[in-house]
Amino acid sequence: MKVTVSRKAHFNAAHRLYRKDWSNAQNEALFGKCSNPHYHGHNYELIVHVTGDIDPETGYVMDMKILKDLIKNEVEDKMDHKNLNEEVAEFFDLIPTAENMVVVIYNSLKPHLNPEHTLEVTLYETPRNYVSYSE
Amino acid sequence: MKVTVSRKAHFNAAHRLYRKDWSNAQNEALFGKCSNPHYHGHNYELIVHVTGDIDPETGYVMDMKILKDLIKNEVEDKMDHKNLNEEVAEFFDLIPTAENMVVVIYNSLKPHLNPEHTLEVTLYETPRNYVSYSE
Amino acid sequence: MKVTVSRKAHFNAAHRLYRKDWSNAQNEALFGKCSNPHYHGHNYELIVHVTGDIDPETGYVMDMKILKDLIKNEVEDKMDHKNLNEEVAEFFDLIPTAENMVVVIYNSLKPHLNPEHTLEVTLYETPRNYVSYSE
Amino acid sequence: MKVTVSRKAHFNAAHRLYRKDWSNAQNEALFGKCSNPHYHGHNYELIVHVTGDIDPETGYVMDMKILKDLIKNEVEDKMDHKNLNEEVAEFFDLIPTAENMVVVIYNSLKPHLNPEHTLEVTLYETPRNYVSYSE
Amino acid sequence: MKVTVSRKAHFNAAHRLYRKDWSNAQNEALFGKCSNPHYHGHNYELIVHVTGDIDPETGYVMDMKILKDLIKNEVEDKMDHKNLNEEVAEFFDLIPTAENMVVVIYNSLKPHLNPEHTLEVTLYETPRNYVSYSE
Amino acid sequence: MKVTVSRKAHFNAAHRLYRKDWSNAQNEALFGKCSNPHYHGHNYELIVHVTGDIDPETGYVMDMKILKDLIKNEVEDKMDHKNLNEEVAEFFDLIPTAENMVVVIYNSLKPHLNPEHTLEVTLYETPRNYVSYSE
Repeated sequence: MKVTVSRKAHFNAAHRLYRKDWSNAQNEALFGKCSNPHYHGHNYELIVHVTGDIDPETGYVMDMKILKDLIKNEVEDKMDHKNLNEEVAEFFDLIPTAENMVVVIYNSLKPHLNPEHTLEVTLYETPRNYVSYSE
Repeated sequence: MKVTVSRKAHFNAAHRLYRKDWSNAQNEALFGKCSNPHYHGHNYELIVHVTGDIDPETGYVMDMKILKDLIKNEVEDKMDHKNLNEEVAEFFDLIPTAENMVVVIYNSLKPHLNPEHTLEVTLYETPRNYVSYSE
Repeated sequence: MKVTVSRKAHFNAAHRLYRKDWSNAQNEALFGKCSNPHYHGHNYELIVHVTGDIDPETGYVMDMKILKDLIKNEVEDKMDHKNLNEEVAEFFDLIPTAENMVVVIYNSLKPHLNPEHTLEVTLYETPRNYVSYSE
Repeated sequence: MKVTVSRKAHFNAAHRLYRKDWSNAQNEALFGKCSNPHYHGHNYELIVHVTGDIDPETGYVMDMKILKDLIKNEVEDKMDHKNLNEEVAEFFDLIPTAENMVVVIYNSLKPHLNPEHTLEVTLYETPRNYVSYSE
Repeated sequence: MKVTVSRKAHFNAAHRLYRKDWSNAQNEALFGKCSNPHYHGHNYELIVHVTGDIDPETGYVMDMKILKDLIKNEVEDKMDHKNLNEEVAEFFDLIPTAENMVVVIYNSLKPHLNPEHTLEVTLYETPRNYVSYSE
Repeated sequence: MKVTVSRKAHFNAAHRLYRKDWSNAQNEALFGKCSNPHYHGHNYELIVHVTGDIDPETGYVMDMKILKDLIKNEVEDKMDHKNLNEEVAEFFDLIPTAENMVVVIYNSLKPHLNPEHTLEVTLYETPRNYVSYSE
């Protein structure tokens, strides 16, 4: 009897899409205005989905307060009101596209979950563009 | 050619998370303010997903008016504006967590559907917390 | 140069609409299923609007962190996960309709604001029903 | 490392649900007011989901600007502000239910995508009714 | 102590923006694809706002069930799943722009309200375009 | 017969709240993490409200396509995917708080509108914080 529990969170950050080994013209050609050297930013909306059995004693798959605190410690404290390229170590050598971000967030959360639970992460970069990742 | 049709509905209810065989202190330790003996409540948003083949004669997987009426009869009439612990038989001996609720709703709807159709149920307890269930 | 700043918050509560001096039949006739003696509940979405001049030194009408904390102290701590009829003093002798609630919330916040600021409060009882109040 | 990227779009259209080989009474019996001979219409909200590997050079599964343009060329230009029954060739002999529409949209987009990518399409006919399709 | 109560509703309709006394070219020049002779359509989202005193006996400005029924009788039954130009008398000689529609809806509701109450009507034609009217 | 037409738009930008004439400690004390020297960012959601008479010839207060283009030219092209502090002239010496931004946007749009029309501008900095301005 597998149930998925989902928890929404959000954070704001600045970023820039570019490769250090490319010229500005090359970056502009591929990433367009997202490669602006002065940065731009987003309100990221995050949804974390955890799938597992219902614990018959508590009626919970996992306590949502624990999941809320985990998201705060592992994602919000690291990324909220930050410049992703300059201040978040995972993106010093990795382009902070939504795709790469959702994998980084997945990898930040997974080790802290019950290994029998399945994790999926969804990240909205704008209300019209979002990404999801699950191994 | 499997298509999923989804229908949203909603209902309001009061509930309390607690185990009768635990002390108030034990309930408070696990369930926090959700175990308030005076109850609290939610606007539950429900999404019912039915997957099957498109009927070539009608262009429907199933008639959404029939699904809407089924949700009203089997879920809304039973739970809307009710106290789940006190008035809904399934929760007399089952903690009305969102996880248990989504399974109860699934089991209420499943017998009324075409057995060749697959059912998934999603239940939002708050705009930030939701659960999904599918066998 | 008057600007309005608005801050959203939310809380969950149980309530019941009824008059103690009416019979159950009278209450049922007017309030319908909202008068259920076992209570029902809602996710209340609250929007607090404060209008005033922009402080030229800070660029703020008022610091939104202060407004957020004020809403937490004066509204959320009093009403979140509570039974409004049984546990919130203002509703011991006042029917907790959305209309009465929005006035109670207004009166809780107003004394803590700069007297030169104008206050308006909006309260969603469900996604389809909401109320607003401003003197 | 499969990631899904999703892009939202929308279009407005008129349609009517009916079979040419049925009488008006038969159509009315099954399709109700959706079979109104004078047409009615919707704001269709579309979500296109593409799943694939992250390109390590760009950090993209696919460039969302390309996906946005593809949706415009293959779906919006064909259906936006149109009468589906009268002006969209796929529905001259196919009832434009949401189920049939989502399959038509899927088939319009699929040939233009990287064959290693998986496609899923979600279509909201109203805020409460939506459909999804993926082979 | 004036409080505003607001109620959301929705309906779907087909329409076309054009003047009978203009050529197709003139209509196309001003109304663009909204003048398509085959019609297009929308999910209209409606919000009705009624402002008045709280009745101290009931805690209501007005009973929302009565407002809900009034909207159904005066607006939904007339416009839902209809072709506005062809089937709604008010638009036989009036272009069904959102602006004209919101005034027609206002005039349909006003005579049925307490004359001491103030009415405002908001109508979303799309999620991005909406209009409001209040005398 | 005054009607308000409203149009939504959005843009993404990076910004930082700080005064050049204050120390980092002073800025941090007032603006908290919003003063991060590396910047952070937002998805700004903008709503432009124009109030006027309905033109009896067209049924429009103003053509929404013209309003859409005006917002693009005067706001989106200037602020979208930009660093407000570094790249938008109005904020070289003005703190880009939401309050200051909404006044700047108002002043950018007002000269291009019919002088008999009234303008109000609403700007969401996050889904929970927004500001409005109208002279």
